[in-house]
Amino acid sequence: MSDATRDIEALIDLMARLPGLGPRSARRAVLHLIKKRGQVMAPLARAMADVAASARECATCGNIGTADLCDICRDPRRATGEICVVEDVADLWAMERGQAFRGRYHVLGGTLSALDAIGPEELRIPALVARIRDEGVREVILALNATIDGQTTAHYIADALEGTGVTVTSLAQGVPIGGELDYLDDGTIQAALRARKAVQ
Amino acid sequence: MSDATRDIEALIDLMARLPGLGPRSARRAVLHLIKKRGQVMAPLARAMADVAASARECATCGNIGTADLCDICRDPRRATGEICVVEDVADLWAMERGQAFRGRYHVLGGTLSALDAIGPEELRIPALVARIRDEGVREVILALNATIDGQTTAHYIADALEGTGVTVTSLAQGVPIGGELDYLDDGTIQAALRARKAVQ
Ligand SMILES: [Zn+2]
Ligand SMILES: [Zn+2]
Repeated sequence: MSDATRDIEALIDLMARLPGLGPRSARRAVLHLIKKRGQVMAPLARAMADVAASARECATCGNIGTADLCDICRDPRRATGEICVVEDVADLWAMERGQAFRGRYHVLGGTLSALDAIGPEELRIPALVARIRDEGVREVILALNATIDGQTTAHYIADALEGTGVTVTSLAQGVPIGGELDYLDDGTIQAALRARKAVQ
Repeated sequence: MSDATRDIEALIDLMARLPGLGPRSARRAVLHLIKKRGQVMAPLARAMADVAASARECATCGNIGTADLCDICRDPRRATGEICVVEDVADLWAMERGQAFRGRYHVLGGTLSALDAIGPEELRIPALVARIRDEGVREVILALNATIDGQTTAHYIADALEGTGVTVTSLAQGVPIGGELDYLDDGTIQAALRARKAVQ
């Protein structure tokens, strides 16, 4: 095996470690990149090196940016007195795509988990409590996943914020827009039924 | 949106163009990379830039390498008088993983397709005919996919090689090792039945 083949093998191995790509799709992706090495592979390598060099976590909210404070924490228009708590930056991006929330975020970086020894300190919950005070927050919206760990974490945060005077809410649970009942899990149907509303 | 966010968005867009990754998995992959920017993202960017700068197609067989001739075409032990014809470099890699074939390859880069206006010239079939003569090839093994286009291409190549004195064979079709009949398509079962063998 020559250096060439070794370089390509090394690239496939690195690609195969990405979530969503196995060895087979990593090989296909690398072949595709090699075929389009001028138009796609070289720009992708540069984009990746740029982001690797510049990306960092926002010191306040945990969002990804290139400065000590992320775009959202720097934007004075987003000081609405509302903080949306999410598990992960992917969830923050999903909320931003929804374009419904105009406040700021707090990214936990996971959920409480006895199994994985993830406690409140790991999730930056003390930092959240400090922000309530420092930023004059009126409402904390918990946008955690509707999993057992997500809901355990939501309850823990609600408890931790008791006595701060802040209103704690969470996203409504129910049938997604366009969702077919037949495809929903039982828990979603039960939650939607419990939260049923009178039809006007 | 700041430069930072734009850089990350641009990276997600580039990643989402890879086969096997959609927008959602591209976002997850980029977030994963940003979290592991030191250990994974920077090495991946370098590996990609290296391969983008060095990779090229072998002038003889169409395999990927870093020189005019690929590793296999440079290796004198692989001048066995056999050439295995494959559609794509991914198929060449699959054959090499099988470790059963010790000859050389000819990568067509696709199949004949009237619809996509892919003719014999595009598939380097004249170059294959020239190699038969120049390299003293005794056997051409057609390892094309068992699709209609693959089989049309196989027949075309067999015709093109008539009169060269070379033996043209193709991979046996049948039930894959460990394959369950229930999961096979009808064509495979039909081919396996037609090629049935006496049990010793
Ligand atoms: Zn921030
Ligand atoms: Zn070659």
